[in-house]
Amino acid sequence: MELLLLSNSTNHGRPMFAHAAEVFEEVAAGDQVTFVPYALANWDDYADRVTAALGAFGIAVTSAHRAPEPDRAILEARVVMMGGGNTFRLLDSLDRLDVIEGLGERVRSGATRYMGASAGTNVVCPTIRTTNDMPICRPRSFDALGLVPFQINLHYVDADPTSTYMGETREERIEEFLEENDCPVLAMYEGSWLRVSGERAVMTGRARLFRRGESDTLAHGSDVSKLISETPVFDGGRRPRKGVSQGLQAPLR
Amino acid sequence: MELLLLSNSTNHGRPMFAHAAEVFEEVAAGDQVTFVPYALANWDDYADRVTAALGAFGIAVTSAHRAPEPDRAILEARVVMMGGGNTFRLLDSLDRLDVIEGLGERVRSGATRYMGASAGTNVVCPTIRTTNDMPICRPRSFDALGLVPFQINLHYVDADPTSTYMGETREERIEEFLEENDCPVLAMYEGSWLRVSGERAVMTGRARLFRRGESDTLAHGSDVSKLISETPVFDGGRRPRKGVSQGLQAPLR
Repeated sequence: MELLLLSNSTNHGRPMFAHAAEVFEEVAAGDQVTFVPYALANWDDYADRVTAALGAFGIAVTSAHRAPEPDRAILEARVVMMGGGNTFRLLDSLDRLDVIEGLGERVRSGATRYMGASAGTNVVCPTIRTTNDMPICRPRSFDALGLVPFQINLHYVDADPTSTYMGETREERIEEFLEENDCPVLAMYEGSWLRVSGERAVMTGRARLFRRGESDTLAHGSDVSKLISETPVFDGGRRPRKGVSQGLQAPLR
Repeated sequence: MELLLLSNSTNHGRPMFAHAAEVFEEVAAGDQVTFVPYALANWDDYADRVTAALGAFGIAVTSAHRAPEPDRAILEARVVMMGGGNTFRLLDSLDRLDVIEGLGERVRSGATRYMGASAGTNVVCPTIRTTNDMPICRPRSFDALGLVPFQINLHYVDADPTSTYMGETREERIEEFLEENDCPVLAMYEGSWLRVSGERAVMTGRARLFRRGESDTLAHGSDVSKLISETPVFDGGRRPRKGVSQGLQAPLR
């Protein structure tokens, strides 16, 4: 299995994908890339921009939405590039195309190499429960490709100690996720990526790793292969019950 | 119908609710308030903090989670205070308590006055599709109380022109919502609130109003009563179709 999972498509002030040109060449070299544009609304514009960006590294791209049968184009691809945008819209589109199971199998078997950025990285997780995106539409399920057994949070940012913003910090949002679910969360800062090759997983750039009650900062180049053998547990958070007082409760954990 | 809908519970550097003490007194005066703590995981702690905060204005609070039957406590309340936290968790809890329809009817009839902050404001909308929260669990539906026929976005922040963050700005997220749905979005900055009284709706503090292809800045004290007669349309965004090329598409709109 070969995965290239970027936090973001574009680094500030640089052309799309330019910060990761070498690793794109490593993964996609010599093969046609099938681009999946459905996380954004304007597929034509998005496909044109990605074709130009990867073309600058000598990588040829066709967009699935221009194929006679987009689902078949995705399922027969040698290399898939799953574009970023809104994760809810992307997952809903993949579900409507009925490619979630088939693409998962192809990538797991090594028949398809998988590259993704932002929302395109979110959907390799077991679920989309750690996306930052607005739930602008409702996919039939939050279950995603499940190519890795842990969750990823993209565009990770530290809390700004000078901020007067009173909404949750990203760290608080991930802690809320961990109240409801028991599953590591790999939080990737801008400009970073995760490269999975078989049983080996290595971070490039900065990241943090959250688990219930703990978090670690990962140095550039960290080997996180141990995450590949995790067994995540979803749900299990406490809920009120109809007709039952829960005022005298045991401590949360 | 009497609604008090706050963007946030706490302004930076001030005690909880202190920025809105007068309007809390106006809405809750003389009645016991039933607090709903389910947007956070630690109900006891949350209930204690809110009881102290509203107590400082002479408002008495009991928490629904300490009642013999929490669902009944909510449905029989004269005044409900719906606390903030995670919107997905809150909506899931209200659904499991089976109070969504009943509470909606009580508030619409005027039998219950409704106060909410953050997630507690999100759930008065037709759906939770404009929440900023992480989808840490999956409610059976995104449909919420529907006490107003438009969407609200809380903790609204303008894009920072000096930022190097490459994730979507709040404005971009709301525009993505409008690609998929045709429904006004009232975006409320920190410290603001919306007061709905019958057919009249007035903003205190700063806000923006987004519609497809346009947005307006609302001045302090703006009357937004016209929003009460909107007819929102959800879904309708374009999706790929299995076996069908959509490469030669008509313009998006």
